[in-house]
Amino acid sequence: MKARVFVTLKPGVLDPQGAAIGAALGGMGFDGVAGIRQGKVFDIELDAPDETTARESLDAMCRRLLANTVIEDYSIEIA
Amino acid sequence: MKARVFVTLKPGVLDPQGAAIGAALGGMGFDGVAGIRQGKVFDIELDAPDETTARESLDAMCRRLLANTVIEDYSIEIA
Repeated sequence: MKARVFVTLKPGVLDPQGAAIGAALGGMGFDGVAGIRQGKVFDIELDAPDETTARESLDAMCRRLLANTVIEDYSIEIA
Repeated sequence: MKARVFVTLKPGVLDPQGAAIGAALGGMGFDGVAGIRQGKVFDIELDAPDETTARESLDAMCRRLLANTVIEDYSIEIA
């Protein structure tokens, strides 16, 4: 089963990397960028009997390793 | 206009970070992980008159800054 997990900074958490990329894009002539925030994506190939089990397992992985839930949100998509 | 850009390693390109995360998950008791690859996601707030212009602009940003197209693929989603 293929899954995609997104880990993004919570709104309000400072994202200096995103700010640097936004500034760089502005310097390159891309004027239209009003905001940019960088996150992580994990493409996971998972052996699970069904989608519910997969989702529970992925949720546990996010809480325990993939995301820092103090400052990050995560979301799970199962293909 | 809100857009999401995914930058992922091309198939076949070694992903030591993904491998390390996979090994860590295995060590934590998550047995079902057959593979994991890490990529980047950019959430971009863009001023553009229409979707075609936005997509062209984002495509140029990916080619020029956000992705290293030698080893990375990118995809664009416009909300």
